[in-house]
Amino acid sequence: MPFHAKALIAPLGLLLCLAPSAQAQETPLLGFTSESSTAEQALEARFDELLNRDNLRDWMERITAAPFYVGTPHNKENAEWVADLFREWGYDTEIVEYQVLFPKPRVREVEMVAPEQYRALLAEPVLDADATSGVDGRLPTYNAYSADGDVTGELVYVNYGTPDDYEELDRRGIDVEGKIVIARYGGSWRGIKPKVAHEHGALATILYSDPRDDGYFQGDVYPDGPYKMAQGVQRGSVTDMPLYPGDPLTPFVAATADAERMTVEESPAIMKIPVQPISYSDALPLLRAMTGPVAPVAWRGALPTTYHLGPGPATVRVHLEFDWNLEPAYNVIARMEGSEYPDEWVIRGNHRDGWAMGAADPASGHVAMMEEARAIGELARSGARPKRTIIFTSWDAEEPGLLGSTEWVEHHADEIREKAVAYINTDGSGRGFLNMGGSHTLERLANEVAREVEDPQTGVSVWQRTQARRAVSGNAEATSRPDLRISPLGSGSDYTPFLQHLGVASLNIGYSGENGGGSYHSQYDSFDHYTRFGDPGFYYGITLVQTTGRMTLRLANADVLPMRFANFVDNVSMYADQVSELLDQTRTATERENRLVQMNAYVLAADPTRTYVPPTAQGEVPYLSFAAIQNAMRGLEESANSLDAEILRVLESGLAPAQQAAVNQVLMSTERLMTNDDGLPRRPWFRHQIYAPGFYTGYGVKTFPGIREAIEQRNWEEAGEQIELVADMLIRVSGALERAIQILEGNEIAP
Amino acid sequence: MPFHAKALIAPLGLLLCLAPSAQAQETPLLGFTSESSTAEQALEARFDELLNRDNLRDWMERITAAPFYVGTPHNKENAEWVADLFREWGYDTEIVEYQVLFPKPRVREVEMVAPEQYRALLAEPVLDADATSGVDGRLPTYNAYSADGDVTGELVYVNYGTPDDYEELDRRGIDVEGKIVIARYGGSWRGIKPKVAHEHGALATILYSDPRDDGYFQGDVYPDGPYKMAQGVQRGSVTDMPLYPGDPLTPFVAATADAERMTVEESPAIMKIPVQPISYSDALPLLRAMTGPVAPVAWRGALPTTYHLGPGPATVRVHLEFDWNLEPAYNVIARMEGSEYPDEWVIRGNHRDGWAMGAADPASGHVAMMEEARAIGELARSGARPKRTIIFTSWDAEEPGLLGSTEWVEHHADEIREKAVAYINTDGSGRGFLNMGGSHTLERLANEVAREVEDPQTGVSVWQRTQARRAVSGNAEATSRPDLRISPLGSGSDYTPFLQHLGVASLNIGYSGENGGGSYHSQYDSFDHYTRFGDPGFYYGITLVQTTGRMTLRLANADVLPMRFANFVDNVSMYADQVSELLDQTRTATERENRLVQMNAYVLAADPTRTYVPPTAQGEVPYLSFAAIQNAMRGLEESANSLDAEILRVLESGLAPAQQAAVNQVLMSTERLMTNDDGLPRRPWFRHQIYAPGFYTGYGVKTFPGIREAIEQRNWEEAGEQIELVADMLIRVSGALERAIQILEGNEIAP
Repeated sequence: MPFHAKALIAPLGLLLCLAPSAQAQETPLLGFTSESSTAEQALEARFDELLNRDNLRDWMERITAAPFYVGTPHNKENAEWVADLFREWGYDTEIVEYQVLFPKPRVREVEMVAPEQYRALLAEPVLDADATSGVDGRLPTYNAYSADGDVTGELVYVNYGTPDDYEELDRRGIDVEGKIVIARYGGSWRGIKPKVAHEHGALATILYSDPRDDGYFQGDVYPDGPYKMAQGVQRGSVTDMPLYPGDPLTPFVAATADAERMTVEESPAIMKIPVQPISYSDALPLLRAMTGPVAPVAWRGALPTTYHLGPGPATVRVHLEFDWNLEPAYNVIARMEGSEYPDEWVIRGNHRDGWAMGAADPASGHVAMMEEARAIGELARSGARPKRTIIFTSWDAEEPGLLGSTEWVEHHADEIREKAVAYINTDGSGRGFLNMGGSHTLERLANEVAREVEDPQTGVSVWQRTQARRAVSGNAEATSRPDLRISPLGSGSDYTPFLQHLGVASLNIGYSGENGGGSYHSQYDSFDHYTRFGDPGFYYGITLVQTTGRMTLRLANADVLPMRFANFVDNVSMYADQVSELLDQTRTATERENRLVQMNAYVLAADPTRTYVPPTAQGEVPYLSFAAIQNAMRGLEESANSLDAEILRVLESGLAPAQQAAVNQVLMSTERLMTNDDGLPRRPWFRHQIYAPGFYTGYGVKTFPGIREAIEQRNWEEAGEQIELVADMLIRVSGALERAIQILEGNEIAP
Repeated sequence: MPFHAKALIAPLGLLLCLAPSAQAQETPLLGFTSESSTAEQALEARFDELLNRDNLRDWMERITAAPFYVGTPHNKENAEWVADLFREWGYDTEIVEYQVLFPKPRVREVEMVAPEQYRALLAEPVLDADATSGVDGRLPTYNAYSADGDVTGELVYVNYGTPDDYEELDRRGIDVEGKIVIARYGGSWRGIKPKVAHEHGALATILYSDPRDDGYFQGDVYPDGPYKMAQGVQRGSVTDMPLYPGDPLTPFVAATADAERMTVEESPAIMKIPVQPISYSDALPLLRAMTGPVAPVAWRGALPTTYHLGPGPATVRVHLEFDWNLEPAYNVIARMEGSEYPDEWVIRGNHRDGWAMGAADPASGHVAMMEEARAIGELARSGARPKRTIIFTSWDAEEPGLLGSTEWVEHHADEIREKAVAYINTDGSGRGFLNMGGSHTLERLANEVAREVEDPQTGVSVWQRTQARRAVSGNAEATSRPDLRISPLGSGSDYTPFLQHLGVASLNIGYSGENGGGSYHSQYDSFDHYTRFGDPGFYYGITLVQTTGRMTLRLANADVLPMRFANFVDNVSMYADQVSELLDQTRTATERENRLVQMNAYVLAADPTRTYVPPTAQGEVPYLSFAAIQNAMRGLEESANSLDAEILRVLESGLAPAQQAAVNQVLMSTERLMTNDDGLPRRPWFRHQIYAPGFYTGYGVKTFPGIREAIEQRNWEEAGEQIELVADMLIRVSGALERAIQILEGNEIAP
């Protein structure tokens, strides 16, 4: 059945649009002619009418009725139930299974053996106010991919456990070699903490949630309020995800039943020391028993004690043993073939597995995606099938490290490279303000959609509300730049394999800011918690459906793909300025610090009654030429502006189907051109040259990661090499834009 | 007996110095000829040799053996003992008595009456580790000059209780009218808190020490460490000191026995509502019982609870009654008449009264001053009597509000105006880094001295250590500006009546930064605390004596007074830039905020489920002309540079005694010229036009207070008037400098 908008343009024959419609006073939607834009808007109005808040609520209640982490019966039931629904809604649906490494704990013991005895509870209590807090089969509190081990050592408090934190410890003459570190959650992705601790010779890592970051300091604790109660624990993976995500035993290849696998010992992504998360109730006795220097001000949390660094005298035994089994991960893949361009795929995804009860993370996003799929299915059934293929993906095993999505992407890499238009991700979502992250070629599209979706609490657009928030927070640009910037993506959800491994333009969308935190990866991320504190009434759930639904539909139906390059160039040139400034700042800071070392200022400013190890002078920071990037940027800017103008022109004047197909092929390819086959230094899996998770920050993005991290690591030769690689990449992209211009100017019709 | 240095210069007859000495390779001391500089340095070397750490220890132990607040027997004993010692050391000594209002509590009750019962202890426990913590006659925990009252109301948490904090409450729709506010210490002088609470209609104010600012968050608590233990309480005055300090019943006049007095009710400086300080142990149950909005992040302390704003349901009764008696305050005034210029006074002071046991505050500074006086007395006895009169002042009743010093200054205002060269203040002092505050005409002198005094822990100069600390803290100027800046003075110690009422150039000197805090105004500011955590061994006590002793001696012996004006101009022009920038920033911020109001951004950025009262648009900020100040500054800069050069010239080439006397009279007068007879708007007692305590910050200084506070209060007309007054003042100072130049050029010999 043809997409209903097609009827409007069919009489025009070869040219999609000869002239702007008299009725369409407004600017047409991005990538649409006036006529197709009007049709698309009508379609979206129908889409909105189909949406039902009760579905979100009912589905969340069902999904979260029992634990559904990888390998649980309820996870499999959910997969089958979701697959059945997709089929019912008209999707060609399959359950794709991978065999992934998923360790579960057999022994978990954390006990203080000196100067007094304390055995950590490592358990979250059952609460009357939370119906699922006592459910059978609850996942114990642990960190997936911790090493097995039974070690005893003095405690050292390492704050967030980032490399900078160890420099502070160095200044105080504190070495963690042969010690056990206790680090609070926050400041970086959790997997960074044991990785850095291990690099410094620690025997084990204890992670805890400090109430300063996640507990009563933030607000009332559960069940009175949404924040983390005293015995609440954040579970989570500690695989070395910035090295590669997915099954730790099968980097680059799919974890099919017969895949060649590393051993656990061989896998570089698995932690080499034991890691165990504890609650702040369990942390307090340990921290109280420590002496040594008082922690720096910024390191002190909200527990009622003086924070000391140690080492000791608190001495702790950490004993952990895991069952290192393969478990089945079930991705649900649901396709609606496109009516006109079946080989152009718009992929939409959300993970389905959760630690513990997983209401916010991931069910809140998953049920929104389901409602989106249901409505699109219903529109298709009524005759409005999308022009491009839409693939809904319900990922399993995201929590242990993006396993479901990564294995599928690795499995189908060639076909995805060839066919993917874009990937739109959601994950946990709540109440408040629109968060938009993603590829900057999609920034204009994201803004266009955000301007049209209504905020359910205020009646203004979600764009306006987000703008207001940024403006009030002191972001001057929010009131002067036409589009709100979208954030570059690091990692932390399933867009990573699409964006950073294959170069598929991606978006990551959610609402937050007014739902209280504190349930993350704990037993209390439950239906009860979410419906009280997350998004009561699921109003923002529907808003999320309206947001991503529009993005999906516009990407699926646009005449010319809605990537726009002026926004891309504006952001990328800002990143180029930033890495150049980073080098200058590093030079200035180094000069300043070396001068202070030379004048002995660090020693003189320190209290002589305390141990203090002054920093030593560092090597000079050279000047590096950014000319290659600057020249490439200039060319790119010209191409981008010309192409954006040319696309507007042809959408008004019309273009031939062959031209249209050819230009869309080029537009689809641009993000692919931002990757390098060799990947980033020391982590070849990450291929995107503009966006990557930080090697030492984890989720946190590093833009121009090759250059930026070389500067941060003071590797000037590598920084110079990376500058050339980035310049080459920008020239490649520029070349693609030029080709698109030529196509649109009719000078070249690609085969 | 002549000052020994005089012998060196006597043969030169009329001219102090005809040519630089062949032996004096180094730059002579500020204000000294080469010969007199050499003599002064020899004198100071002898001064150093006389100093004895044991004296400081013994005297502190004696002073702090029993409570010695105003009106206690031990206070009087201390006064008599100190007076006897001064006499013994060769000083013409008197005890000057004033009758000052000093209320003491009869009833102190703070109890929570709903939603549960809690009666605050209001008591500091006796500790085995602290010998005087159980001594008889201890002063109860209270705030002097609180009103009597018996009121009951719901609690509102107001953070530090500054005007800005009430704006935050306004945004949340919270009104303190008819409520009792609980405010934490810090962020402003304590007297500001009940004053602002009263202005907003509160019934009473409870002050408490949050462990975030003053307790376990900062470090180990007493007696394990120096920080405030759970039941420790900060006593203190809550008179409206920024209005006027001194006896609240006798502003402008001395509180002699027969002085005309206001009634307590008439005194505008006495608080109009009850105010009671409590410990964090007493505060926790009250804060825990509050609900309402969660406090803003910056308001949250380190108690293990979620900080709520209220109002209520915690409902508290505050019942306070005081005996409003006059008590005798005993200043000890000890004079050593100058051998050459007896009518030029160098005044040196430290208060002697303390809340509770007062070891750090004030005994640490007082014993250092005593040792300084002893050594100067000994030098005088051995023939080296100072050229100018030195007056040592041991002030009583500083703690209730600078009463001893203020009454004496008011009593002798005319003579002080005529004769005072400078006032050098100390107060509590500890271990670490040199703090220099004061008149910027003395900045060069302070730096000169600091460069010569050795830090007892590192062996470098105290200047170098302070420079190192500033440099490491990111103060770029510390390594580029020849002199370290000294801080402008607000209030908080006995320099206030000298500097801000009469215009006597003042310095306030101390060491700190490595002694742990937490004992301030509590029972545990004891000999035991100070000798463990303050300045064990009294090494910095001796360093303080060396520092202030040099300042006193150089001011007393200099040929030309060591005021230098290039430093003054450099600082004052910075302040002029700052007030002009403040106006611009206020304009920019107002425009920005009004734009946000207009676009409804505040409302849209707020959570609609919570009460939020958006700010309203404010009136436009006009442009004001600072031209009068800019022109005056230009003239002042020329005069200052010429005068500094001219002084250097005559110190090399020689000047006649009449010239010398005349120029010193002018130099003495310059600070006086910085005052206006009418004082500052709404507080005529404060006459200095450059330095004042902030009307709404208390101790914190406001430079160019008339202009700055008019801008802050958005009183543009007054700001314009104050700009003219400041310009006039700068022109007056400039005129004095020109007169000094003329004197030195020999064109004018003042009579």
